[in-house]
Amino acid sequence: MNCGAFQDRKVLITGGLGFIGSNLARRLVDQGAEVTLVDSLLPPCGGNLFNIRGLENRLRVEVLDIRQALQQGVLASDVDYVFNLAGLSSHLDSMTDPAMDLDINCAAQLSLLEAARQTSPDAKIVFASTRQIYGKPDHLPVDEDHPIRPIDVNGIHKAAGESYHLLYHRVYGLRAVALRLTNTYGPRMRVKDARQTFLGVWIGQVLQGRPFELWGGEQLRDFTYVDDVVDALMLAAVEPAVDGGAFNLSGEPVVSLRGLADLLVEASGGSYEVCAFPPERRLIDIGDYYADDRRFRALTGWTPNVPLVAGLERTLGYYRDELANYL
Amino acid sequence: MNCGAFQDRKVLITGGLGFIGSNLARRLVDQGAEVTLVDSLLPPCGGNLFNIRGLENRLRVEVLDIRQALQQGVLASDVDYVFNLAGLSSHLDSMTDPAMDLDINCAAQLSLLEAARQTSPDAKIVFASTRQIYGKPDHLPVDEDHPIRPIDVNGIHKAAGESYHLLYHRVYGLRAVALRLTNTYGPRMRVKDARQTFLGVWIGQVLQGRPFELWGGEQLRDFTYVDDVVDALMLAAVEPAVDGGAFNLSGEPVVSLRGLADLLVEASGGSYEVCAFPPERRLIDIGDYYADDRRFRALTGWTPNVPLVAGLERTLGYYRDELANYL
Repeated sequence: MNCGAFQDRKVLITGGLGFIGSNLARRLVDQGAEVTLVDSLLPPCGGNLFNIRGLENRLRVEVLDIRQALQQGVLASDVDYVFNLAGLSSHLDSMTDPAMDLDINCAAQLSLLEAARQTSPDAKIVFASTRQIYGKPDHLPVDEDHPIRPIDVNGIHKAAGESYHLLYHRVYGLRAVALRLTNTYGPRMRVKDARQTFLGVWIGQVLQGRPFELWGGEQLRDFTYVDDVVDALMLAAVEPAVDGGAFNLSGEPVVSLRGLADLLVEASGGSYEVCAFPPERRLIDIGDYYADDRRFRALTGWTPNVPLVAGLERTLGYYRDELANYL
Repeated sequence: MNCGAFQDRKVLITGGLGFIGSNLARRLVDQGAEVTLVDSLLPPCGGNLFNIRGLENRLRVEVLDIRQALQQGVLASDVDYVFNLAGLSSHLDSMTDPAMDLDINCAAQLSLLEAARQTSPDAKIVFASTRQIYGKPDHLPVDEDHPIRPIDVNGIHKAAGESYHLLYHRVYGLRAVALRLTNTYGPRMRVKDARQTFLGVWIGQVLQGRPFELWGGEQLRDFTYVDDVVDALMLAAVEPAVDGGAFNLSGEPVVSLRGLADLLVEASGGSYEVCAFPPERRLIDIGDYYADDRRFRALTGWTPNVPLVAGLERTLGYYRDELANYL
């Protein structure tokens, strides 16, 4: 989208050196926004300075965690938009270090919202939530009325983080909205391990000439290409009708993990091995998932434009050139 | 209940100097349990040393917060039962100091569960959850399948705290169960302010000869007398069929706040003033609530034995003698 809405507007992106944040930053800078990125560059998060290569002189970067950045005044009264993308997304890490997940996905979020209501009550805040809060679906596709029943520590904390945003909207009038992302993929995603999605590590493996591991394979999933997520974030930012709501994003087509593996191998020339599901992951696996995102489409006109095969090709194209910067 | 199940068993009660914890401690000591209480005695919590008057030599008390107490080894491998009642319950405090609510209702809970899975994987853990996690009911009575949609910070954090317990059951096999309490009342409740329930402050006021304030008045509520809650906690502790579940408790009869105010005035001889609902509370008010607790009754045989009028009389009787120790 390019409606001029971001021209000369002050934008703060938390987690801005990460996968989605850096893709969003590129788009906003191109549209004339005055962009500040905050990113802790903590190793388990997705931040990577390479993600903003070429943009260095067109935006401001604060390598700080959110609370330090708030103390430095990044959330001044003239901030127009906050894209609140900072967070941990690894389900397994959240089980081995729940206190760290709590600190980043809850404590830091509360600090941000408290600062917002005190210093920037007019800013629009777009929060990156996750399908993980639903837990194991009762029915498919999952719409926003599906029970919130997370099955790992990360899901519990992301659910709390989303709830804070909706609460601060209702009680304090903050203009906040949450997008419940499904698997997002594309250039600048983390590929050195499975902390963002298993698809990242698959791509990293095939491009290093190694077979990737498919665990199980029958689970159904949906995927959104990062440019489509960036569109959605920007539409959510400018559309008042979504304020106070939480909305699914999805993408087409729904595919089994085995189907995805086959598509990837077809596009990359690599190969994969089928493995049993690791027991520590099986316990927190959500089974099949795909989302009904009609509410968000209806309110904003959003529609994903990059189908899975094209998105995989673009992603592989990026990493063929840049893989060394992501390992 | 007295089935001998607690004779010589090692029991840890967090929040043990508080309202429910101290009533439970009395019962367990009488049944021959070896009881340790942990309580931070933080001012906004319900802890009060007077609550264990006469018991001082029959149990152990650690005036520490949970994490300090864990470092002192209170959760040794031979603990049989943990009644995990420590927590903040004030909705309004959670809005003015969300970080404190997060620390006590989430961070400390995670510490306890991490310690339990590492040092006491066989202990049974009974967690005091709350109806507050449901938010504004969609339908009445509220059963356990009702959506979890908390509308204040306290509700968000208590929902997370409950989810941790159920997760640690599912993933690590901890024998944990959550009881979603509604308004609990009785001797040893906090009466100097409304941090535990509005009924506490009403009782404190009428016994000081001052009219209490009724805000609104039409909201429906249910109440459980503390001895019935103690029964429920002990049944939950000994009944394996409830492990991994979360269960409502209720009580009879359902009554409007005005109806309750009239009952209290009839029993106490006091008076009340009808006031408009304060705006900062209206925003986080849940409206009408009463619970369907048939699942817990069916699995444990629990039934509340003290109806509201009798419970109010007993409570007033206690505070007529002891009010000075609670102001």
